[in-house]
Amino acid sequence: MTHSGPIPVDPTLGVTSPKGFRAGAAAVGVKEGSDKLDVAVLACDVEAAAAAVFTQNKLCAAPVLVCRDHLSRRAGVRAVVANSGNANAATGDSGLADAREMAARTAERLGCPAEAVLVGSTGVIGHPLPMDKIRTGIDRAVAGLAAGPDADHAFARAIMTTDTVPKQAGTRIELGGRTVTVAGATKGVGMMAPNMATTLGFLTTDAAVEAPLLQDVLRRAADATYNCLTVDGHTSTNDTLCLLASGLAMDGAAPLAAGSDAAAAFEAAVLAVCDNLGRQIISDGEGATKLIEVRVTGAATGAEARAAASAIANSPLVKTAFFGEDPNWGRIVSAAGYAGISSGPETMRLEMGGLVIFDRGAPVGADPGQLKAVMAAREIDVHLDLGAGDGRARFLTCDLTYDYVKINAEYTT
Amino acid sequence: MTHSGPIPVDPTLGVTSPKGFRAGAAAVGVKEGSDKLDVAVLACDVEAAAAAVFTQNKLCAAPVLVCRDHLSRRAGVRAVVANSGNANAATGDSGLADAREMAARTAERLGCPAEAVLVGSTGVIGHPLPMDKIRTGIDRAVAGLAAGPDADHAFARAIMTTDTVPKQAGTRIELGGRTVTVAGATKGVGMMAPNMATTLGFLTTDAAVEAPLLQDVLRRAADATYNCLTVDGHTSTNDTLCLLASGLAMDGAAPLAAGSDAAAAFEAAVLAVCDNLGRQIISDGEGATKLIEVRVTGAATGAEARAAASAIANSPLVKTAFFGEDPNWGRIVSAAGYAGISSGPETMRLEMGGLVIFDRGAPVGADPGQLKAVMAAREIDVHLDLGAGDGRARFLTCDLTYDYVKINAEYTT
Repeated sequence: MTHSGPIPVDPTLGVTSPKGFRAGAAAVGVKEGSDKLDVAVLACDVEAAAAAVFTQNKLCAAPVLVCRDHLSRRAGVRAVVANSGNANAATGDSGLADAREMAARTAERLGCPAEAVLVGSTGVIGHPLPMDKIRTGIDRAVAGLAAGPDADHAFARAIMTTDTVPKQAGTRIELGGRTVTVAGATKGVGMMAPNMATTLGFLTTDAAVEAPLLQDVLRRAADATYNCLTVDGHTSTNDTLCLLASGLAMDGAAPLAAGSDAAAAFEAAVLAVCDNLGRQIISDGEGATKLIEVRVTGAATGAEARAAASAIANSPLVKTAFFGEDPNWGRIVSAAGYAGISSGPETMRLEMGGLVIFDRGAPVGADPGQLKAVMAAREIDVHLDLGAGDGRARFLTCDLTYDYVKINAEYTT
Repeated sequence: MTHSGPIPVDPTLGVTSPKGFRAGAAAVGVKEGSDKLDVAVLACDVEAAAAAVFTQNKLCAAPVLVCRDHLSRRAGVRAVVANSGNANAATGDSGLADAREMAARTAERLGCPAEAVLVGSTGVIGHPLPMDKIRTGIDRAVAGLAAGPDADHAFARAIMTTDTVPKQAGTRIELGGRTVTVAGATKGVGMMAPNMATTLGFLTTDAAVEAPLLQDVLRRAADATYNCLTVDGHTSTNDTLCLLASGLAMDGAAPLAAGSDAAAAFEAAVLAVCDNLGRQIISDGEGATKLIEVRVTGAATGAEARAAASAIANSPLVKTAFFGEDPNWGRIVSAAGYAGISSGPETMRLEMGGLVIFDRGAPVGADPGQLKAVMAAREIDVHLDLGAGDGRARFLTCDLTYDYVKINAEYTT
C-alpha cells in the first residue's frame, strides 16, 4: 500500500522536533490507580500561528469549547495543555470552569495570557476532573519542559488512553533552501469515527505560515486522513487536531504564500504526517489485529464514494469477518448496498488484495486458496469499483475482535 | 416495559392459525452439514390479498426482485416458498433464474400461476443456490402441507439462520362479531438494521382486507417495529416482511374499509404481532444477553428523535458497556451528540431504568448502587429527553458480546 504519498515519514521525529517547541509531562493519577503519564504541556518559545479542527459532536467537551473561544480571540498560541484519563465532557458549568483553569494555570506558569493556551482532554465522560491532581500535573509538566526524543515520547505517552503504543511521526522538507520540519503526536484508539479531527492530535512545525493558510492546510489534511478513520463509528466528544507553526526554521523569511509551490510542499508534508499518524491509530485500534484499507472508486459522486466506504468500514459484520479471516465478501458488497448509493450491483466490481471476487453483479469464482492468503495478511486492501462515475474515497478501519469487546465492556466509569 | 400495546399476543399462534393457511417444511442440506429444516412453503387455500415491504439495500437479493415483480403483476398470492442457509444474493442472472424456478416449481405443485408465489431466502451471500436440494425441499414441503402447531413450528424453524429459537406470535380480535386471527413467524438475528422490513417475516390473517389497505397497514406497522430494530446496523440484502389475508374468517362479509373502526382494530393487531416478533428477534440477537429499549423524546423533530435513537442503539461503545453492565452513560449522551440533532446538552435529560443520571448538561450524581442494579437487569429502559420539542422515537437493540464476535468471525462462507 502506497497511500502515505511520496513523502517519507520519520517515526523518530516528535512534537519538539520543529524549532521552538518544548514538551513536558507528569504522572499524577488522573488515570486512577495508575502511575502512567497523564498530564502534558507543549510550549512554544514564540507565539505560534495556530490552526485547529474539532469534533462535530453536539455534546462537545469543555476543553473544545475553551479552544474555540481562545482561537476566536487570537490566532497565535503559546502552549497546549492536555490530560488523559478524564474527558471533561458532559460535566456542565463546573467542567467549563475546570478547563479554563487548566489554560489559566499553564499560562501563569509560562507567563502568557490564558487565551494563548489550548486545552485537550481525553478519557471517561461525565466525571469531574480531579483538579488537585491536574494542578500538580501542570506545574510539574511546565517545570520539566524540554526538547528532544525523551520529551517527544513523554508527551505522546501522556495523551494515551486505551492506546497500547505512543504515536508520533514527522517529516523534513526543503523550502527555499531551508529545512522545515512538520511533526506530531496523536492518540486513539476507541470512540473513533470520522467527523473532523478524530481524537487528539498535536502537530508542530517551524515553517512560517499565517493562521488562515494554516487552517486551510489542516482542514484539507484532516478531511483526507483523520476524517477517514474509524474504529467503532462513535464520534468522540473531545476530538481535537491542532497545528502550531513557530516559523523559526525560516530565518525571518516571509510566511508561505497561499497557492505557492512552497505552500503546496508544506501541505504535502502535513498530509503525509497526518496520514501516518492515522495509520498508527487504526493499527492500534482497540483490540485490532488487522488494518483494512477500504477504497471505493467509480462512484456517481464523491459523497456516494465516502458513504459506501464508511458503511463498509463501520459494518460489524465486515469487521468480524476480517477477524475470522473469513472471505465473506457478501458482507462488503451488501454494506455498500445500504449506504445510499445510486448505482446497483450490475456495474460493481470487488477486489481484495488485488484478487477479483465479484464483477458486474455476480461472483467470479476466485480461487479459495488465493483468497485465504489475502485474508491472512496483517494489512488488507479492499477495492470496490462502483462503475458509475469518478467519485472516490478511502477509509481505514480495523477488525472487530474479542478484545474490542473486552476492552469496552471493562473500561470502567 | 409496556410498549407491546394493549393487545395481548399469544406465542402459541403461528402462520397456520388464521383460517385457510397450511405450512410445510423439509431438511435437505441447504444448511451445509446440518440436518436442520431449511426449505419451507406457506400456502393459502384461496387467493390471499398480499402486502409486502422489502429491503432498501441496492444489492437486493434475487428473491426480493422476484417478489416485487410478482406483486406488481397481481395483488393476490397463493403461497410463499422460503429457504435458509443461502441468501441467493449477489448471485447475478443465474441467481434470478433460481429464484424464479423456486416460485415456478412451488406453483406447479400447488396448481397455481408462478406469479402467485412469493420467494424468500436467507443465509450466506454470494453463493449459488444448490437447486437440486431446493427442488427436493419444495416437493417435500408441499407434500407435507398441514395446519396446526407442528406445522407452525416447522415453518418458523425452517427460516432460522443463526437464530437460537424459532419466533412466532399471533393474536385474535373480534371484528363485527367474528373472530379474526393475525399471526406470523420471523427470523433474525444478524445483519439486522432497520430499513423497511428487516430480515424475513411472514404474517397471515383470515381478515378480509384488500391489498391497498393491507399494504398501508403493513407499512405503518413495519415502520414502528421492524424498522426500529438493530442488532448490528447492517441492512440485509434479503429483508422481506409480507402479510397474506385469506378473508376466510369473515363469512363473505365486505373487506375492511380504510378509516373504519374495524380497520383500526385490525391495524392494532398487526402492530402488536409485529412488535412482539421484533422483541423476539432482538432478545435472540446474535450473542445478546440483554434487550435494550432506547426511547428518545423531546426532539426538535421526529427525524432527529429517530437519528438519536438509532445512533445510541447502533453504537458499539454503548452496546459493549451494557454487556459489561458498566454504567458508562457518557457513551449514550455522546452518541446522541453525533447523530445530527439540533439541540445541545443544556436541555438534555437521561434516565436509565427510571433513574435520572444526567440533567441539563451535567451529571446529577445518581446513586451507584441503584445504577448497578439497573445495569444488571435483562431488559433495560433508556430514556433520553432532548428537551427541544415533541419528536419521539423508539429503538430496540441488544448488547455487543464476545459471542457476537464469535458467531460472526466463524460464520463461514
